[in-house]
Amino acid sequence: MRALARAISLIENESAQGLELLDAIYPDVGDAYRVGISGPPGAGKSTLVDALTERLLDGGSTVGIIAVDPTSPFTGGALLGDRVRMNRLGTREGVFIRSMATRGGLGGLSRSAPSVAAAMDASGLDYVIFETVGVGQSELDIAEAADTTVIVLVPESGDSIQAMKAGLMEIGEIFVVNKADRDGAEMTVAEISSMLTLKNDPSGWHPPVLRTIASTGEGVAELVSTIDEHRRFLLNNGLLAGRRRLHFKSQVRGLVVDALEKRLYERLGGEDGLDAVLGDETKGARSPHQVAKDVLDGLDNI
Amino acid sequence: MRALARAISLIENESAQGLELLDAIYPDVGDAYRVGISGPPGAGKSTLVDALTERLLDGGSTVGIIAVDPTSPFTGGALLGDRVRMNRLGTREGVFIRSMATRGGLGGLSRSAPSVAAAMDASGLDYVIFETVGVGQSELDIAEAADTTVIVLVPESGDSIQAMKAGLMEIGEIFVVNKADRDGAEMTVAEISSMLTLKNDPSGWHPPVLRTIASTGEGVAELVSTIDEHRRFLLNNGLLAGRRRLHFKSQVRGLVVDALEKRLYERLGGEDGLDAVLGDETKGARSPHQVAKDVLDGLDNI
Repeated sequence: MRALARAISLIENESAQGLELLDAIYPDVGDAYRVGISGPPGAGKSTLVDALTERLLDGGSTVGIIAVDPTSPFTGGALLGDRVRMNRLGTREGVFIRSMATRGGLGGLSRSAPSVAAAMDASGLDYVIFETVGVGQSELDIAEAADTTVIVLVPESGDSIQAMKAGLMEIGEIFVVNKADRDGAEMTVAEISSMLTLKNDPSGWHPPVLRTIASTGEGVAELVSTIDEHRRFLLNNGLLAGRRRLHFKSQVRGLVVDALEKRLYERLGGEDGLDAVLGDETKGARSPHQVAKDVLDGLDNI
Repeated sequence: MRALARAISLIENESAQGLELLDAIYPDVGDAYRVGISGPPGAGKSTLVDALTERLLDGGSTVGIIAVDPTSPFTGGALLGDRVRMNRLGTREGVFIRSMATRGGLGGLSRSAPSVAAAMDASGLDYVIFETVGVGQSELDIAEAADTTVIVLVPESGDSIQAMKAGLMEIGEIFVVNKADRDGAEMTVAEISSMLTLKNDPSGWHPPVLRTIASTGEGVAELVSTIDEHRRFLLNNGLLAGRRRLHFKSQVRGLVVDALEKRLYERLGGEDGLDAVLGDETKGARSPHQVAKDVLDGLDNI
């Protein structure tokens, strides 16, 4: 566990050592099953992740948790920390928790999150759970990193409609109505199920809608078995490898685009250089498209 | 109005004509004041935007509205359309409404939104209002397009904490507690005000917290005058030009990065080319970083 913690720090810092390490461990990456847990703020995702983790540990599995928190604009740090989680799970063997900030403070999985998952995977952990607060970009990113994406909602008027608006219906493979002892739980389950009848997943998987009360652990065993069912579905239909290949590709693409953007700004001479290119353009002489075209024409080698 | 509608269509389609048009109109861009309205789903943003627009029209101003809706994953179309809005405001003179889908379905202002705002601006409209549902990336984008960013919340337990988590506190310059006749409104106002005391805006602006009941129009006059106050604050402190320059720059940067990404994939031979570069990498021989490095080394001209 201590070696894993050090490895993750090297990876997160994007040090040369971290990159070397990643290359070295990749042959051992691929056995861990990746579960993404997402949903709107206040749905009880952390409590559910903890309950899910305890259940997996009870079953003899080991678990890595990557908890993605938005950076607080005020403190500069993540709002929730490892420490809160460690109080609940820290006494258990076989669990490794890492909190990381979102990319940019308004959501989005950090570029290093899939690499951190790879390190957990190579270290021999059986499951890697990604957990994010529900802000738009994070969910999309999680769906691009997880083998199974679980969307957590609560029984609140309009919540399922809002989730649909936010695109959660599109990415969810298992839906959980948490706090299912609250009024309106059955209604919410019915609403989600009804919306899901409109969804036509090309893989042939029909997303089930489960009920949980994460604080008491109710329904969590069923969640574990449903995740397992989805895993077997992907494996039996030969879909897991293709899905992971897509994720690998999107990770490569993200890294290439980041690097290109960085090179571009170096070539232009950083912010000062870009300022010089812009000149007095904000006075309205030319459109941003015209200025962008000039910048690109100056880079005729790509 | 008909010419503006046609111009916007050309711009949204990214046609050569649209780009020419943008270059032609840019000398006339800059007089319209841009207001961003954002906040979590269900806060009543559309109703507030309509009430705000009516008030501005009553005062003799003209208004363009850019309503950004996430694309429905099921229908492929935007969830809310121009038609709903037109029923409420369509009989009024001096208002132009355009709905557009988010970039990618999970939030984010479409790349063309600032250009559409430019067309509205050049056509002589006094205000351009951007409205988005509250999914992470949209808010960030709106703050990069608006002169004044208004965050709308409702009195609900924990809502302000969730907004803070989602980064809304960071970008808001005016906060509105809508549905202020509901229980808990004073508490929500107090919570937000208390959180804002921690915010140290380098510009020296102290974000006010207003109460509105958008459905009856209560508090909307004060919102109009507070937007005006923020506008005067920016002007009197010489901050508006700098802010718009930053927005212009980020628009150029976005266009350049998009174009570079496109060129890159053409150079690599599209998806097939990328697949060829990846080879059997998902079997775990090399890390995504190693593959990305190989791709970049093949593009040694940038």
